[in-house]
Amino acid sequence: MRRVGIGEFDLIARWFSRPARRSPLGVGDDCALLQPRTGWQLAVSCDMLVEGRHFLPTVAPQDLGHKALAVNLSDLAACGAEPLGFVLALALPSLEERFVEPLADGIWSLADRYSMDLLGGDTTAGPLSLCITVFGEVPAGEALLRSGARPGDDLWASGSLGDARLALEVFRGHAGLDAAAFAQARRAMERPEPRVALGRHLRGIASSAIDLSDGLVGDLGHVLTRSGVGAVVEFAKLPCSEGLRGQSPVMQARCLLSGGDDYELLFTAPADAAARVRAASEAAATPVSRIGTIVDEPGLRVLDAGGEALDLGEFRGFDHFARR
Amino acid sequence: MRRVGIGEFDLIARWFSRPARRSPLGVGDDCALLQPRTGWQLAVSCDMLVEGRHFLPTVAPQDLGHKALAVNLSDLAACGAEPLGFVLALALPSLEERFVEPLADGIWSLADRYSMDLLGGDTTAGPLSLCITVFGEVPAGEALLRSGARPGDDLWASGSLGDARLALEVFRGHAGLDAAAFAQARRAMERPEPRVALGRHLRGIASSAIDLSDGLVGDLGHVLTRSGVGAVVEFAKLPCSEGLRGQSPVMQARCLLSGGDDYELLFTAPADAAARVRAASEAAATPVSRIGTIVDEPGLRVLDAGGEALDLGEFRGFDHFARR
Repeated sequence: MRRVGIGEFDLIARWFSRPARRSPLGVGDDCALLQPRTGWQLAVSCDMLVEGRHFLPTVAPQDLGHKALAVNLSDLAACGAEPLGFVLALALPSLEERFVEPLADGIWSLADRYSMDLLGGDTTAGPLSLCITVFGEVPAGEALLRSGARPGDDLWASGSLGDARLALEVFRGHAGLDAAAFAQARRAMERPEPRVALGRHLRGIASSAIDLSDGLVGDLGHVLTRSGVGAVVEFAKLPCSEGLRGQSPVMQARCLLSGGDDYELLFTAPADAAARVRAASEAAATPVSRIGTIVDEPGLRVLDAGGEALDLGEFRGFDHFARR
Repeated sequence: MRRVGIGEFDLIARWFSRPARRSPLGVGDDCALLQPRTGWQLAVSCDMLVEGRHFLPTVAPQDLGHKALAVNLSDLAACGAEPLGFVLALALPSLEERFVEPLADGIWSLADRYSMDLLGGDTTAGPLSLCITVFGEVPAGEALLRSGARPGDDLWASGSLGDARLALEVFRGHAGLDAAAFAQARRAMERPEPRVALGRHLRGIASSAIDLSDGLVGDLGHVLTRSGVGAVVEFAKLPCSEGLRGQSPVMQARCLLSGGDDYELLFTAPADAAARVRAASEAAATPVSRIGTIVDEPGLRVLDAGGEALDLGEFRGFDHFARR
């Protein structure tokens, strides 16, 4: 019952202690201290990654560290918040330098790009898992929310969708890809790029936003429910890689509509703001695609190239995501 | 690789969604929003509890929920911070109402006492663990730190020490207790009371503070290292229960000096502030005991009733706690 990892304090001292750059007090006391800028609010989110659930045992520790922070940064991005710091709770089956060192390196490589402080955490022996709580700042009242989509708004997605799921299907032996396309898909799965810059540039432009972590149908469902609206999506406009475009229609639909692990931003904006959205995309060096429209009528329709509504039966299998 | 617990969203909706009382935005978006009062700082801490490490499989879910939040509140208490909210990441082997409902009840019973908001989190299938990040507020510059102990300061402890460890020793068959004393010790282990009120009242009085989670020798070591001082502790003054006082000297020493899981406050204050410490104790309805003195000479000496230094060999076995 003692709060002990083997060499817990050595581990913290070697890999997880750095002077705070932007916070009044960092790692090393009972609490860290944070102070958002005057007139700004603190945005907070938390994601836990568990081995076998959220990552395969084959993942490189450096990629795992990157991804654990990236999925949290993706939540900040979806709010238009600017990264500030994070706390890390780490359960490790054993303390092995060859694992912890690249893991820490993966975390810091990403954290340093945003000058983030590690503000504390916890380490313990246990089945491998990483739990990160991330902190960002956003001007009071300007956070992008899920609840702001309005009928007539355009629906947009960043980057390309479905590659992470496609890589998983290849690992499972359900899909084939040439080496270059597989490398790209695997990179999408293991080293997602949080769209922090795009989120920041969309403040004051987007009417709603969410990050795509559980698949388009499920995550768009959250926006529609919270905003009290519906949406029509044009399947052919969903941005996707050449590798995925070469798969069967069923596999394409599965990866694009319920793929999960995309960590792209799905957002809405008034139709007359399209030029500003394009400018934000350019300023953030992040491609965006207009994939549909927000409508009055509740529910989601995905139209094929001929304008026929796709049967979303398979993807509604994840309806518990959309029931909130 | 999908971020799925079975019925994750039902679970969140039923047990872990309540309107935010004190935060601009609570559960249900990509991020929650927090705004400390003007002139106050946000205190942040994180503790993860893993089954088999931090709690026994026999623990009642309600007690587990209580303890998971209590150990985090104890960190806020040690900084003199006032609780504001928390995020919860929960890994569950399976979703069983008879487990989750009392677990949530244990968490909320404690959270409600401080009007805390649940600000988000994550749920997943996985080996049972709870990771809480807690938020509090403290007036800027007034947080109690580990680094403020000065030679000549009195050393104080709240409540009584060692009972949680004693209960564990009974579970392990290494110690015997009558039913009433065991119930008390078990309660100390399973339902620790965070010393939030005492921490708040010690702001401006205590020169340093830490919460006792890893045992007196280890945790005091952190204070001494960070403050660049030493300490002399009088063993006979360590506050302990009748049940522990009836154990062998070796068991007493083990429980009192390296027990862990006490969640009492260990703090220092100038000798001329003793009356103010007593007043804070009374205002917080939390007993305190003066257990020693801070000295110039580095290191820790624990003196027996005859003034002889105890051999801390057994307890220095946990020296990696003090090496930071």
